[in-house]
Amino acid sequence: MVTASVGAEQRMKDLGITLPPSPAPLGAYVEAVQTGNLLFLTGMLPVMDGKAKYVGRIGVDLDPEDGRDAAYIAFLNGLAVIREHLGSLDKVGRIVRLCVYIVADPDFRDHPKLADGASELLEDIFGKERTSSRMVMGIASLPLGAPVAVELIVEALG
Amino acid sequence: MVTASVGAEQRMKDLGITLPPSPAPLGAYVEAVQTGNLLFLTGMLPVMDGKAKYVGRIGVDLDPEDGRDAAYIAFLNGLAVIREHLGSLDKVGRIVRLCVYIVADPDFRDHPKLADGASELLEDIFGKERTSSRMVMGIASLPLGAPVAVELIVEALG
Amino acid sequence: MVTASVGAEQRMKDLGITLPPSPAPLGAYVEAVQTGNLLFLTGMLPVMDGKAKYVGRIGVDLDPEDGRDAAYIAFLNGLAVIREHLGSLDKVGRIVRLCVYIVADPDFRDHPKLADGASELLEDIFGKERTSSRMVMGIASLPLGAPVAVELIVEALG
Repeated sequence: MVTASVGAEQRMKDLGITLPPSPAPLGAYVEAVQTGNLLFLTGMLPVMDGKAKYVGRIGVDLDPEDGRDAAYIAFLNGLAVIREHLGSLDKVGRIVRLCVYIVADPDFRDHPKLADGASELLEDIFGKERTSSRMVMGIASLPLGAPVAVELIVEALG
Repeated sequence: MVTASVGAEQRMKDLGITLPPSPAPLGAYVEAVQTGNLLFLTGMLPVMDGKAKYVGRIGVDLDPEDGRDAAYIAFLNGLAVIREHLGSLDKVGRIVRLCVYIVADPDFRDHPKLADGASELLEDIFGKERTSSRMVMGIASLPLGAPVAVELIVEALG
Repeated sequence: MVTASVGAEQRMKDLGITLPPSPAPLGAYVEAVQTGNLLFLTGMLPVMDGKAKYVGRIGVDLDPEDGRDAAYIAFLNGLAVIREHLGSLDKVGRIVRLCVYIVADPDFRDHPKLADGASELLEDIFGKERTSSRMVMGIASLPLGAPVAVELIVEALG
Protein backbone atom coordinates (compact mmCIF):
# COMPACT_ATOMS: atom_id res chain seq x y z
CA MET A 1 0.00 0.00 0.00
CA VAL A 2 1.48 3.30 -1.12
CA THR A 3 1.10 6.32 1.11
CA ALA A 4 1.74 9.92 0.26
CA SER A 5 4.69 9.89 2.65
CA VAL A 6 6.60 7.35 0.52
CA GLY A 7 8.16 8.96 -2.54
CA ALA A 8 8.14 7.43 -6.01
CA GLU A 9 11.91 6.85 -6.03
CA GLN A 10 11.75 5.00 -2.72
CA ARG A 11 8.84 2.98 -4.05
CA MET A 12 10.91 2.04 -7.12
CA LYS A 13 13.63 0.74 -4.79
CA ASP A 14 11.12 -1.18 -2.67
CA LEU A 15 9.75 -2.83 -5.82
CA GLY A 16 13.26 -3.62 -7.07
CA ILE A 17 12.65 -1.84 -10.38
CA THR A 18 15.65 -0.55 -12.31
CA LEU A 19 14.92 1.77 -15.21
CA PRO A 20 16.39 1.22 -18.68
CA PRO A 21 18.31 4.05 -20.34
CA SER A 22 16.04 6.68 -21.89
CA PRO A 23 15.19 5.60 -25.48
CA ALA A 24 16.75 7.37 -28.49
CA PRO A 25 14.48 9.25 -30.93
CA LEU A 26 13.76 7.56 -34.28
CA GLY A 27 13.52 10.89 -36.14
CA ALA A 28 13.59 14.68 -35.86
CA TYR A 29 12.11 15.10 -32.37
CA VAL A 30 12.95 14.71 -28.68
CA GLU A 31 11.58 12.34 -26.07
CA ALA A 32 10.01 15.05 -23.90
CA VAL A 33 9.15 18.75 -23.93
CA GLN A 34 8.15 20.77 -20.88
CA THR A 35 5.96 23.86 -20.98
CA GLY A 36 5.13 25.46 -17.66
CA ASN A 37 4.64 22.53 -15.29
CA LEU A 38 3.39 20.14 -17.97
CA LEU A 39 5.79 17.61 -19.44
CA PHE A 40 4.66 16.06 -22.74
CA LEU A 41 6.30 12.75 -23.59
CA THR A 42 6.81 11.23 -27.01
CA GLY A 43 5.00 7.93 -27.59
CA MET A 44 6.97 5.20 -25.82
CA LEU A 45 7.43 1.79 -27.43
CA PRO A 46 8.20 -1.57 -25.80
CA VAL A 47 11.86 -1.18 -26.68
CA MET A 48 14.78 -2.74 -24.78
CA ASP A 49 18.40 -2.04 -25.71
CA GLY A 50 17.26 -0.18 -28.81
CA LYS A 51 15.20 -3.09 -30.16
CA ALA A 52 11.48 -3.79 -30.08
CA LYS A 53 10.89 -6.53 -27.51
CA TYR A 54 7.59 -7.41 -29.14
CA VAL A 55 6.64 -7.21 -32.82
CA GLY A 56 3.22 -8.06 -34.22
CA ARG A 57 -0.47 -7.85 -33.37
CA ILE A 58 -2.27 -8.84 -30.21
CA GLY A 59 -4.60 -11.73 -30.97
CA VAL A 60 -2.75 -12.57 -34.19
CA ASP A 61 0.98 -12.94 -33.49
CA LEU A 62 0.97 -12.15 -29.78
CA ASP A 63 -1.06 -13.01 -26.68
CA PRO A 64 -2.85 -10.45 -24.51
CA GLU A 65 -0.26 -11.23 -21.81
CA ASP A 66 2.48 -10.12 -24.23
CA GLY A 67 0.50 -6.93 -24.68
CA ARG A 68 0.34 -6.32 -20.93
CA ASP A 69 4.10 -6.82 -20.71
CA ALA A 70 4.63 -4.53 -23.71
CA ALA A 71 2.57 -1.81 -21.97
CA TYR A 72 4.63 -2.35 -18.81
CA ILE A 73 7.94 -2.00 -20.69
CA ALA A 74 6.76 1.04 -22.66
CA PHE A 75 5.73 2.66 -19.37
CA LEU A 76 9.17 1.88 -17.87
CA ASN A 77 10.72 3.71 -20.81
CA GLY A 78 8.41 6.62 -20.06
CA LEU A 79 9.59 6.66 -16.44
CA ALA A 80 13.20 6.71 -17.68
CA VAL A 81 12.43 9.76 -19.83
CA ILE A 82 10.67 11.50 -16.94
CA ARG A 83 13.57 10.85 -14.56
CA GLU A 84 16.08 12.08 -17.13
CA HIS A 85 14.06 15.23 -17.74
CA LEU A 86 12.99 16.11 -14.18
CA GLY A 87 15.99 14.63 -12.37
CA SER A 88 13.86 12.40 -10.14
CA LEU A 89 10.47 10.67 -10.18
CA ASP A 90 9.83 12.51 -6.91
CA LYS A 91 9.36 15.63 -9.03
CA VAL A 92 6.21 14.13 -10.57
CA GLY A 93 3.10 15.76 -9.17
CA ARG A 94 0.91 13.41 -11.13
CA ILE A 95 0.68 11.57 -14.40
CA VAL A 96 -2.26 13.47 -15.80
CA ARG A 97 -3.03 11.48 -18.93
CA LEU A 98 -1.99 8.00 -19.98
CA CYS A 99 -2.83 6.97 -23.52
CA VAL A 100 -2.36 3.35 -24.54
CA TYR A 101 -2.33 2.52 -28.27
CA ILE A 102 -2.84 -1.14 -29.13
CA VAL A 103 -2.33 -2.93 -32.45
CA ALA A 104 -4.63 -5.92 -32.28
CA ASP A 105 -7.07 -8.12 -34.09
CA PRO A 106 -10.12 -5.95 -34.99
CA ASP A 107 -12.27 -8.06 -32.66
CA PHE A 108 -10.03 -7.37 -29.67
CA ARG A 109 -12.07 -6.21 -26.63
CA ASP A 110 -9.65 -6.43 -23.70
CA HIS A 111 -8.08 -2.99 -24.10
CA PRO A 112 -8.61 -2.09 -20.42
CA LYS A 113 -6.94 -5.25 -19.12
CA LEU A 114 -3.97 -4.81 -21.43
CA ALA A 115 -3.60 -1.11 -20.56
CA ASP A 116 -3.60 -2.03 -16.87
CA GLY A 117 -0.11 -3.45 -17.54
CA ALA A 118 0.97 0.19 -17.51
CA SER A 119 -1.67 1.58 -15.11
CA GLU A 120 -1.01 -0.90 -12.32
CA LEU A 121 2.68 -0.04 -12.39
CA LEU A 122 1.74 3.66 -12.37
CA GLU A 123 -0.37 3.11 -9.25
CA ASP A 124 2.32 0.99 -7.60
CA ILE A 125 4.81 3.82 -8.00
CA PHE A 126 2.74 6.99 -7.57
CA GLY A 127 -0.14 5.62 -5.50
CA LYS A 128 -3.79 5.01 -6.31
CA GLU A 129 -4.63 8.51 -5.06
CA ARG A 130 -2.46 9.89 -7.86
CA THR A 131 -3.63 7.65 -10.69
CA SER A 132 -4.15 9.07 -14.20
CA SER A 133 -6.97 9.70 -16.64
CA ARG A 134 -6.73 7.25 -19.53
CA MET A 135 -7.48 6.78 -23.18
CA VAL A 136 -7.08 3.35 -24.78
CA MET A 137 -7.70 2.42 -28.39
CA GLY A 138 -6.95 -0.15 -31.04
CA ILE A 139 -5.04 1.31 -33.99
CA ALA A 140 -3.68 -0.05 -37.28
CA SER A 141 0.10 0.06 -36.86
CA LEU A 142 3.04 1.50 -34.91
CA PRO A 143 6.73 2.21 -35.62
CA LEU A 144 8.97 -0.89 -35.52
CA GLY A 145 5.89 -3.07 -35.84
CA ALA A 146 5.33 -2.70 -32.09
CA PRO A 147 2.01 -3.93 -30.67
CA VAL A 148 1.70 -1.20 -28.02
CA ALA A 149 2.69 2.41 -27.42
CA VAL A 150 2.20 4.50 -24.30
CA GLU A 151 1.95 8.30 -24.26
CA LEU A 152 2.09 10.43 -21.11
CA ILE A 153 1.33 13.96 -20.00
CA VAL A 154 2.97 14.64 -16.66
CA GLU A 155 2.47 17.38 -14.08
CA ALA A 156 5.89 18.40 -12.76
CA LEU A 157 6.35 19.82 -9.28
CA GLY A 158 7.72 23.38 -9.17
CA MET B 1 -29.30 31.11 -29.80
CA VAL B 2 -26.94 30.96 -26.86
CA THR B 3 -25.62 34.17 -25.39
CA ALA B 4 -22.77 34.63 -22.96
CA SER B 5 -25.27 35.73 -20.35
CA VAL B 6 -26.98 32.33 -20.25
CA GLY B 7 -24.95 29.79 -18.30
CA ALA B 8 -24.38 26.19 -19.37
CA GLU B 9 -26.48 24.77 -16.53
CA GLN B 10 -29.42 27.00 -17.43
CA ARG B 11 -29.00 25.99 -21.05
CA MET B 12 -29.12 22.30 -20.04
CA LYS B 13 -32.45 22.98 -18.30
CA ASP B 14 -33.80 24.89 -21.30
CA LEU B 15 -32.89 21.96 -23.56
CA GLY B 16 -34.44 19.46 -21.13
CA ILE B 17 -31.21 17.45 -20.90
CA THR B 18 -30.62 15.30 -17.83
CA LEU B 19 -27.15 13.89 -17.38
CA PRO B 20 -26.50 10.20 -16.67
CA PRO B 21 -24.43 9.21 -13.65
CA SER B 22 -20.68 9.59 -14.24
CA PRO B 23 -19.36 6.32 -15.76
CA ALA B 24 -17.28 3.88 -13.69
CA PRO B 25 -13.65 3.19 -14.73
CA LEU B 26 -12.97 -0.15 -16.49
CA GLY B 27 -9.45 -0.41 -15.01
CA ALA B 28 -6.78 1.25 -12.87
CA TYR B 29 -7.50 4.90 -13.65
CA VAL B 30 -9.96 7.69 -12.91
CA GLU B 31 -12.42 9.51 -15.17
CA ALA B 32 -10.73 12.92 -14.87
CA VAL B 33 -7.57 14.57 -13.58
CA GLN B 34 -7.10 18.30 -13.11
CA THR B 35 -3.75 20.08 -13.28
CA GLY B 36 -3.81 23.84 -12.90
CA ASN B 37 -6.95 24.94 -14.72
CA LEU B 38 -6.87 22.09 -17.25
CA LEU B 39 -9.12 19.09 -16.71
CA PHE B 40 -8.16 15.99 -18.71
CA LEU B 41 -10.97 13.48 -19.21
CA THR B 42 -10.67 9.77 -19.83
CA GLY B 43 -12.03 8.59 -23.18
CA MET B 44 -15.83 8.47 -22.88
CA LEU B 45 -17.80 5.63 -24.46
CA PRO B 46 -21.48 5.55 -25.52
CA VAL B 47 -22.39 3.76 -22.30
CA MET B 48 -25.79 3.93 -20.59
CA ASP B 49 -26.44 2.23 -17.23
CA GLY B 50 -23.02 0.59 -17.40
CA LYS B 51 -23.62 -1.04 -20.79
CA ALA B 52 -22.52 -0.05 -24.28
CA LYS B 53 -25.57 1.33 -26.08
CA TYR B 54 -23.95 0.62 -29.44
CA VAL B 55 -21.58 -2.22 -30.37
CA GLY B 56 -20.00 -2.67 -33.78
CA ARG B 57 -18.61 -0.70 -36.69
CA ILE B 58 -20.11 2.25 -38.54
CA GLY B 59 -20.86 1.23 -42.11
CA VAL B 60 -20.73 -2.47 -41.22
CA ASP B 61 -23.02 -3.18 -38.25
CA LEU B 62 -24.24 0.35 -37.59
CA ASP B 63 -25.48 3.36 -39.55
CA PRO B 64 -23.83 6.78 -39.51
CA GLU B 65 -26.89 8.03 -37.57
CA ASP B 66 -26.10 5.48 -34.85
CA GLY B 67 -22.59 6.91 -34.80
CA ARG B 68 -23.91 10.45 -34.36
CA ASP B 69 -26.06 9.27 -31.47
CA ALA B 70 -23.12 7.36 -29.97
CA ALA B 71 -21.01 10.56 -30.11
CA TYR B 72 -23.88 12.46 -28.47
CA ILE B 73 -24.17 9.91 -25.64
CA ALA B 74 -20.41 9.72 -25.11
CA PHE B 75 -20.33 13.51 -24.87
CA LEU B 76 -23.18 13.45 -22.32
CA ASN B 77 -21.06 11.08 -20.23
CA GLY B 78 -18.22 13.57 -20.51
CA LEU B 79 -20.49 16.37 -19.27
CA ALA B 80 -21.46 14.17 -16.31
CA VAL B 81 -17.78 13.69 -15.44
CA ILE B 82 -17.10 17.42 -15.78
CA ARG B 83 -20.04 18.33 -13.54
CA GLU B 84 -18.99 15.77 -10.95
CA HIS B 85 -15.44 17.07 -10.96
CA LEU B 86 -16.04 20.84 -11.15
CA GLY B 87 -19.38 20.90 -9.30
CA SER B 88 -21.18 22.68 -12.15
CA LEU B 89 -20.94 23.05 -15.93
CA ASP B 90 -20.88 26.80 -15.26
CA LYS B 91 -17.29 26.29 -14.09
CA VAL B 92 -16.25 25.37 -17.64
CA GLY B 93 -14.33 28.20 -19.29
CA ARG B 94 -14.16 26.29 -22.51
CA ILE B 95 -13.83 22.82 -23.92
CA VAL B 96 -10.40 23.24 -25.44
CA ARG B 97 -10.03 20.01 -27.39
CA LEU B 98 -12.60 17.44 -28.48
CA CYS B 99 -11.26 14.25 -29.98
CA VAL B 100 -13.69 11.82 -31.61
CA TYR B 101 -12.51 8.27 -32.29
CA ILE B 102 -14.60 6.27 -34.75
CA VAL B 103 -14.55 2.55 -35.52
CA ALA B 104 -15.84 2.31 -39.07
CA ASP B 105 -15.51 0.66 -42.42
CA PRO B 106 -12.09 1.68 -43.87
CA ASP B 107 -13.86 3.57 -46.66
CA PHE B 108 -15.80 5.73 -44.20
CA ARG B 109 -15.50 9.45 -45.05
CA ASP B 110 -18.19 11.17 -42.96
CA HIS B 111 -16.11 11.63 -39.80
CA PRO B 112 -17.00 15.33 -39.51
CA LYS B 113 -20.76 14.75 -39.75
CA LEU B 114 -20.60 11.96 -37.18
CA ALA B 115 -18.42 14.01 -34.81
CA ASP B 116 -20.92 16.86 -35.05
CA GLY B 117 -23.21 14.63 -32.95
CA ALA B 118 -20.98 15.71 -30.06
CA SER B 119 -19.92 19.15 -31.35
CA GLU B 120 -23.45 20.43 -31.97
CA LEU B 121 -24.41 19.52 -28.41
CA LEU B 122 -21.24 21.25 -27.20
CA GLU B 123 -22.23 24.42 -29.04
CA ASP B 124 -25.84 24.19 -27.83
CA ILE B 125 -24.62 24.15 -24.24
CA PHE B 126 -21.55 26.38 -24.23
CA GLY B 127 -22.31 28.58 -27.24
CA LYS B 128 -20.72 28.78 -30.68
CA GLU B 129 -18.33 31.45 -29.41
CA ARG B 130 -16.90 28.86 -27.03
CA THR B 131 -16.68 25.92 -29.42
CA SER B 132 -13.66 23.57 -29.32
CA SER B 133 -10.74 22.57 -31.50
CA ARG B 134 -11.26 19.06 -32.83
CA MET B 135 -9.50 15.93 -33.95
CA VAL B 136 -11.48 13.11 -35.59
CA MET B 137 -10.15 9.81 -36.84
CA GLY B 138 -11.09 6.30 -37.81
CA ILE B 139 -9.42 3.67 -35.61
CA ALA B 140 -9.42 -0.12 -35.41
CA SER B 141 -11.25 -0.91 -32.16
CA LEU B 142 -12.42 0.40 -28.80
CA PRO B 143 -13.18 -1.12 -25.38
CA LEU B 144 -16.57 -2.92 -25.15
CA GLY B 145 -16.66 -3.04 -28.95
CA ALA B 146 -17.96 0.53 -28.95
CA PRO B 147 -18.10 2.35 -32.31
CA VAL B 148 -17.21 5.79 -30.91
CA ALA B 149 -15.23 7.36 -28.09
CA VAL B 150 -14.97 11.02 -27.15
CA GLU B 151 -12.04 12.59 -25.29
CA LEU B 152 -12.04 16.10 -23.81
CA ILE B 153 -9.59 18.64 -22.45
CA VAL B 154 -11.44 21.29 -20.49
CA GLU B 155 -10.43 24.72 -19.24
CA ALA B 156 -11.83 25.18 -15.75
CA LEU B 157 -12.69 28.61 -14.36
CA GLY B 158 -10.70 29.61 -11.26
CA MET C 1 21.71 26.20 -39.33
CA VAL C 2 19.08 27.99 -37.29
CA THR C 3 20.17 30.05 -34.31
CA ALA C 4 18.01 31.45 -31.56
CA SER C 5 18.74 34.95 -32.87
CA VAL C 6 16.92 34.28 -36.15
CA GLY C 7 13.15 34.41 -35.74
CA ALA C 8 10.74 31.94 -37.30
CA GLU C 9 9.20 34.54 -39.64
CA GLN C 10 12.64 35.52 -40.95
CA ARG C 11 13.46 31.85 -41.38
CA MET C 12 10.26 31.37 -43.42
CA LYS C 13 11.40 34.19 -45.72
CA ASP C 14 14.90 32.73 -46.02
CA LEU C 15 13.40 29.37 -47.00
CA GLY C 16 11.05 31.03 -49.50
CA ILE C 17 7.98 29.45 -47.87
CA THR C 18 4.61 31.14 -48.34
CA LEU C 19 1.78 29.89 -46.17
CA PRO C 20 -1.61 28.90 -47.57
CA PRO C 21 -4.77 30.50 -46.16
CA SER C 22 -5.87 28.94 -42.88
CA PRO C 23 -8.16 25.96 -43.65
CA ALA C 24 -11.94 26.19 -43.08
CA PRO C 25 -13.57 23.88 -40.49
CA LEU C 26 -15.52 20.86 -41.84
CA GLY C 27 -18.01 20.95 -38.95
CA ALA C 28 -19.00 22.59 -35.67
CA TYR C 29 -15.55 23.53 -34.35
CA VAL C 30 -12.72 26.00 -34.85
CA GLU C 31 -9.16 25.50 -36.06
CA ALA C 32 -7.50 26.52 -32.78
CA VAL C 33 -8.31 27.26 -29.15
CA GLN C 34 -5.96 28.94 -26.70
CA THR C 35 -6.03 28.40 -22.96
CA GLY C 36 -3.38 30.18 -20.92
CA ASN C 37 -0.26 30.00 -23.08
CA LEU C 38 -1.19 26.70 -24.72
CA LEU C 39 -2.71 26.75 -28.20
CA PHE C 40 -4.48 23.53 -29.22
CA LEU C 41 -4.86 23.04 -32.97
CA THR C 42 -7.47 20.99 -34.77
CA GLY C 43 -6.11 18.05 -36.78
CA MET C 44 -4.65 19.47 -40.00
CA LEU C 45 -5.13 17.64 -43.30
CA PRO C 46 -3.04 17.85 -46.50
CA VAL C 47 -5.55 20.26 -48.01
CA MET C 48 -4.75 22.90 -50.64
CA ASP C 49 -7.37 25.37 -51.89
CA GLY C 50 -10.05 23.53 -49.93
CA LYS C 51 -9.35 20.16 -51.53
CA ALA C 52 -7.39 17.14 -50.32
CA LYS C 53 -4.11 17.07 -52.24
CA TYR C 54 -3.72 13.36 -51.51
CA VAL C 55 -6.45 10.73 -51.11
CA GLY C 56 -5.82 7.10 -50.28
CA ARG C 57 -3.54 4.87 -48.23
CA ILE C 58 0.23 4.85 -48.01
CA GLY C 59 1.55 1.59 -49.44
CA VAL C 60 -1.71 0.92 -51.27
CA ASP C 61 -2.68 3.96 -53.38
CA LEU C 62 0.19 6.26 -52.44
CA ASP C 63 3.96 6.09 -51.98
CA PRO C 64 5.77 6.90 -48.74
CA GLU C 65 7.12 10.02 -50.49
CA ASP C 66 3.52 11.18 -51.03
CA GLY C 67 3.02 10.65 -47.32
CA ARG C 68 6.04 12.80 -46.46
CA ASP C 69 4.71 15.54 -48.70
CA ALA C 70 1.24 15.19 -47.18
CA ALA C 71 2.75 15.60 -43.69
CA TYR C 72 4.65 18.66 -44.95
CA ILE C 73 1.48 20.26 -46.40
CA ALA C 74 -0.60 19.45 -43.31
CA PHE C 75 2.10 21.08 -41.17
CA LEU C 76 2.08 24.18 -43.42
CA ASN C 77 -1.65 24.43 -42.79
CA GLY C 78 -0.91 24.22 -39.08
CA LEU C 79 1.58 27.07 -39.39
CA ALA C 80 -1.08 29.13 -41.18
CA VAL C 81 -3.50 28.54 -38.30
CA ILE C 82 -0.85 29.44 -35.73
CA ARG C 83 0.05 32.67 -37.54
CA GLU C 84 -3.61 33.62 -37.89
CA HIS C 85 -4.20 32.98 -34.21
CA LEU C 86 -1.02 34.44 -32.67
CA GLY C 87 -0.40 37.11 -35.32
CA SER C 88 3.15 35.87 -36.05
CA LEU C 89 5.16 32.66 -35.89
CA ASP C 90 7.61 34.63 -33.77
CA LYS C 91 5.06 34.33 -30.95
CA VAL C 92 5.65 30.56 -30.83
CA GLY C 93 7.70 29.60 -27.80
CA ARG C 94 7.77 26.01 -28.91
CA ILE C 95 5.72 23.36 -30.60
CA VAL C 96 5.25 21.11 -27.61
CA ARG C 97 3.60 18.07 -29.19
CA LEU C 98 3.37 16.98 -32.80
CA CYS C 99 1.10 14.04 -33.52
CA VAL C 100 1.17 12.46 -36.97
CA TYR C 101 -1.69 10.16 -37.96
CA ILE C 102 -1.04 7.92 -40.96
CA VAL C 103 -3.49 5.83 -43.00
CA ALA C 104 -1.37 3.06 -44.45
CA ASP C 105 -1.11 -0.57 -45.29
CA PRO C 106 -1.17 -2.55 -41.99
CA ASP C 107 2.40 -3.70 -42.61
CA PHE C 108 3.70 -0.12 -42.90
CA ARG C 109 6.76 0.44 -40.69
CA ASP C 110 8.22 3.76 -41.86
CA HIS C 111 6.10 6.03 -39.66
CA PRO C 112 9.14 7.96 -38.38
CA LYS C 113 10.48 8.73 -41.86
CA LEU C 114 7.07 9.86 -43.06
CA ALA C 115 6.47 12.00 -39.98
CA ASP C 116 9.84 13.66 -40.52
CA GLY C 117 8.19 15.37 -43.52
CA ALA C 118 6.58 17.58 -40.87
CA SER C 119 9.32 17.43 -38.20
CA GLU C 120 12.16 18.49 -40.50
CA LEU C 121 10.17 21.56 -41.55
CA LEU C 122 9.44 22.25 -37.88
CA GLU C 123 13.17 22.16 -37.12
CA ASP C 124 14.03 24.27 -40.17
CA ILE C 125 11.69 26.99 -38.93
CA PHE C 126 11.97 26.87 -35.15
CA GLY C 127 15.43 25.33 -34.78
CA LYS C 128 16.56 21.92 -33.58
CA GLU C 129 16.88 23.29 -30.05
CA ARG C 130 13.13 23.92 -30.10
CA THR C 131 11.99 20.65 -31.67
CA SER C 132 8.84 18.89 -30.40
CA SER C 133 7.86 15.71 -28.67
CA ARG C 134 6.10 13.38 -31.09
CA MET C 135 3.51 10.66 -31.38
CA VAL C 136 3.08 8.80 -34.70
CA MET C 137 0.64 6.03 -35.44
CA GLY C 138 -1.10 4.18 -38.21
CA ILE C 139 -4.89 4.55 -38.09
CA ALA C 140 -7.83 3.28 -40.14
CA SER C 141 -9.19 6.40 -41.88
CA LEU C 142 -9.34 10.18 -41.92
CA PRO C 143 -11.81 12.83 -43.15
CA LEU C 144 -11.75 13.41 -46.94
CA GLY C 145 -9.93 10.09 -47.36
CA ALA C 146 -6.68 11.85 -46.50
CA PRO C 147 -3.62 9.67 -45.85
CA VAL C 148 -2.12 11.90 -43.16
CA ALA C 149 -3.20 14.33 -40.45
CA VAL C 150 -1.03 16.45 -38.17
CA GLU C 151 -2.07 17.73 -34.75
CA LEU C 152 -0.17 20.35 -32.76
CA ILE C 153 -0.02 21.71 -29.24
CA VAL C 154 1.83 25.02 -29.21
CA GLU C 155 3.34 27.07 -26.42
CA ALA C 156 2.60 30.74 -27.10
CA LEU C 157 4.86 33.50 -25.86
CA GLY C 158 3.19 35.92 -23.43
